[in-house]
Amino acid sequence: MAIRALVWGENVHEQKNAEVRRIYPDGMHNTIAAALRKDPGIQAATATLQDPEHGLTDDRLAKTDVLLWWGHAAHGDVADHVVDRVQQHVWEGMGLIVLHSGHFSKIFKRLMGTPCSLKWREAGERERIWVINRSHPIAAGLGEHVELPATEMYGEPFLVPEPMETVFITWYEGGEVFRSGLTYKRGAGKIFYFSPGHEVYPVYHQAEIQQVLCNAVNWAHNPLPRWKKIEDAPNVPTDKAPEKIETRGPRLHADGEAGLR
Amino acid sequence: MAIRALVWGENVHEQKNAEVRRIYPDGMHNTIAAALRKDPGIQAATATLQDPEHGLTDDRLAKTDVLLWWGHAAHGDVADHVVDRVQQHVWEGMGLIVLHSGHFSKIFKRLMGTPCSLKWREAGERERIWVINRSHPIAAGLGEHVELPATEMYGEPFLVPEPMETVFITWYEGGEVFRSGLTYKRGAGKIFYFSPGHEVYPVYHQAEIQQVLCNAVNWAHNPLPRWKKIEDAPNVPTDKAPEKIETRGPRLHADGEAGLR
Amino acid sequence: MAIRALVWGENVHEQKNAEVRRIYPDGMHNTIAAALRKDPGIQAATATLQDPEHGLTDDRLAKTDVLLWWGHAAHGDVADHVVDRVQQHVWEGMGLIVLHSGHFSKIFKRLMGTPCSLKWREAGERERIWVINRSHPIAAGLGEHVELPATEMYGEPFLVPEPMETVFITWYEGGEVFRSGLTYKRGAGKIFYFSPGHEVYPVYHQAEIQQVLCNAVNWAHNPLPRWKKIEDAPNVPTDKAPEKIETRGPRLHADGEAGLR
Amino acid sequence: MAIRALVWGENVHEQKNAEVRRIYPDGMHNTIAAALRKDPGIQAATATLQDPEHGLTDDRLAKTDVLLWWGHAAHGDVADHVVDRVQQHVWEGMGLIVLHSGHFSKIFKRLMGTPCSLKWREAGERERIWVINRSHPIAAGLGEHVELPATEMYGEPFLVPEPMETVFITWYEGGEVFRSGLTYKRGAGKIFYFSPGHEVYPVYHQAEIQQVLCNAVNWAHNPLPRWKKIEDAPNVPTDKAPEKIETRGPRLHADGEAGLR
Repeated sequence: MAIRALVWGENVHEQKNAEVRRIYPDGMHNTIAAALRKDPGIQAATATLQDPEHGLTDDRLAKTDVLLWWGHAAHGDVADHVVDRVQQHVWEGMGLIVLHSGHFSKIFKRLMGTPCSLKWREAGERERIWVINRSHPIAAGLGEHVELPATEMYGEPFLVPEPMETVFITWYEGGEVFRSGLTYKRGAGKIFYFSPGHEVYPVYHQAEIQQVLCNAVNWAHNPLPRWKKIEDAPNVPTDKAPEKIETRGPRLHADGEAGLR
Repeated sequence: MAIRALVWGENVHEQKNAEVRRIYPDGMHNTIAAALRKDPGIQAATATLQDPEHGLTDDRLAKTDVLLWWGHAAHGDVADHVVDRVQQHVWEGMGLIVLHSGHFSKIFKRLMGTPCSLKWREAGERERIWVINRSHPIAAGLGEHVELPATEMYGEPFLVPEPMETVFITWYEGGEVFRSGLTYKRGAGKIFYFSPGHEVYPVYHQAEIQQVLCNAVNWAHNPLPRWKKIEDAPNVPTDKAPEKIETRGPRLHADGEAGLR
Repeated sequence: MAIRALVWGENVHEQKNAEVRRIYPDGMHNTIAAALRKDPGIQAATATLQDPEHGLTDDRLAKTDVLLWWGHAAHGDVADHVVDRVQQHVWEGMGLIVLHSGHFSKIFKRLMGTPCSLKWREAGERERIWVINRSHPIAAGLGEHVELPATEMYGEPFLVPEPMETVFITWYEGGEVFRSGLTYKRGAGKIFYFSPGHEVYPVYHQAEIQQVLCNAVNWAHNPLPRWKKIEDAPNVPTDKAPEKIETRGPRLHADGEAGLR
Repeated sequence: MAIRALVWGENVHEQKNAEVRRIYPDGMHNTIAAALRKDPGIQAATATLQDPEHGLTDDRLAKTDVLLWWGHAAHGDVADHVVDRVQQHVWEGMGLIVLHSGHFSKIFKRLMGTPCSLKWREAGERERIWVINRSHPIAAGLGEHVELPATEMYGEPFLVPEPMETVFITWYEGGEVFRSGLTYKRGAGKIFYFSPGHEVYPVYHQAEIQQVLCNAVNWAHNPLPRWKKIEDAPNVPTDKAPEKIETRGPRLHADGEAGLR
């Protein structure tokens, strides 16, 4: 059965900026979704900030295996209750791929617990993305590096937790470096951050970048059933303890009382 | 110079529950602070939920090297702007030690990015805390394990990210296990979660537990100056790039413009 | 295409000890291989210490996707050149599942770089294996824990590096705990250590244990081509540098000279 | 009490190569030791390959808090029994700092369990070492980056396990990147790998590099007593189990018998 990917696009600069519209006449989200459809195992749909509930209803997320997130100009316009919902689904097992300026999205900052800040420069310089472990599934089919002729520089320090794996590290013409591909797990959800993708350059039209996105969707997919109520703190009463014990001493809670939170 | 520890206590059950008041007549925060003062290198103060700004003004936090957090009944009463402030100071380098039911505090959930949920049972059963790496500074002076005669069970799965280090794992009489001592870094701040400490048992009066708290304060202290503005995303203009480059191609931002966030 | 698993069994106690022979009349390796064959996606073969080259020729390993390793009485009899070969194949991408007393095998100690020591007791006590992350592929299909009615105790401290993921933690009737399921990567190879499996108890006949083994084979399989010559340190001569540079200053090596090692 | 650092130098190229002798007339080990002595908290001595037992007797290692290792031309000449000894002391708590070409030393490969291979080029190009976490103790006192005017390129992929922390990442003029500062723990020992230090450039004369070495010695020092017999696998007999149990069922080992290994 195909993996159900949902590409979420902020879809703001495509409307306001002629250069972005020229490069992505259908919107970045549609370009990315079309790239994913080149993998016969992926079924890709799109949603945008402008849709009701930003296109991210509970029902929609329940039918999504992997969510891709591109946002830049309007992070603050994403409703908190929708972010709550996305976070819940990631915890339960939905994969999440955060792209480029999505490092400052509400959802990424929440899942990381850190500032997610970095340095930046928009000079159209050259970027060379080095593959740190070429046997990682996200790097499948790539050579030892991928070059972008023009990119926005994102420089260290990148304020994220130590990753589970460092998949890519980037070299910039202007002299900086960046951990451009990082993996994490949060609850049952697998997360991949991938830094390329500035909207005034045709990054998502490049074949190797499209390959990384397809690989990442396959990697981030957790085929197990969603872990519902993962946020619950269930009581295990004494008579249900795996080993036979007796309650002794003082207690704060009466039998059957819910825990505090 | 002494390490400045600040023990934050919710101070609710000490007021409402006779048993808790009997065990901790001065409040849990004062018992913990007194324990820390046994280490001549630590200078310990206290703050509570009931203090103005919960005792956690920006000035107070700026003068705190390591914050200890005990809360249970009133997580929701902690003001969000105070949580923002504590998070900022942790990012900048303040150490944080989260105790027992603090697993569900706003500050811990924010820094972890996960549900922080677990199982629980209040049966006064025996707990044996195994030292996983006895050469870790937080385990200094302990034997191969620490026993609590009566404890609240906190059981796996504990929904936190994979830790930097697993320092302790607990065995319970009723048949469960728990990762009872875990370390993390978030920005410049070092974080230690330590699960013992249910308020109806005299856990913080036990010498080995007091030893762990002193060790943890020493471990969590980052002597480097606070990393101010760690959340900023500074622009590096082309003429300030480490290597000489020329701006080329289209741009989204004018010179000197702030980045989007 | 099926995953090609190879079950390596030391096959010593099956020959010498009547109780082990009674439980595993066909040898432990054959019981494990039969269990793997219940997964239609796995094709399982066996090899033993007594085979020429211990059944682990270069050609055989090249055709193996995942190797399972059970040894106990004769770690020292495994030839070093065979261990070299297995290590090389793990680095290149062959999965490795190390079982029970294999913690002290040459291959595991080499890949970990640590003593791999632990405590032990042979009392036929009860073991309860807790699933730490039930959405991990190695835990697929299990409940919240697995019970073994009789087991050998393996106790912490277990001297291995911090794992990539802690999948299982064990509770023992006698009072100890153990990190019973741990994942690692070394080069392109995925490694899973799983502690149950003492030879005088019918552990590998238990359905849930067989499920874990099948899951682990699926998890450890790296479908990418082997990373040949992963141990090489290739020179990148100046005229092949990704950016145009000129050699300047003194040099130790002449053009085309191999590096030192 | 001062930290006792021991700088081990291979001391081969200093004897054979005029350029190396010109830069390091006293040998690289002496230059490094002199740099460490600028920190009043460090007491530095030296040992070389040519000394009896390579200067690394058991007694000498027992009195060493942190060992620094520089080798290049003669990794194969280091006696295996001395490597065994150094590994044992690292496991027991001695810190280890591996420098530059030491990535291919026997001791580093053993502790990592991976090939430790990389790419290289000797072109005297510029290196810029970026500080990934400026609040890490190893980065204390540095700016946001350190520049080396001439360096040997060491390029990714660097075949080591995922580190505990990535402290530095390097940018090279020729277009490559490298994880130039990585931390690990193996048993009770803390390990830091630091890539700069090619012998035909005056790298260890540079103030910031000397600062990193002093910081690293302070970081790698484990003040706890050595963990003797860390490699032992002690039996815990039934009557010494923390919880009262009875032995039941078949057994492989008689009472008091040593475990197999």
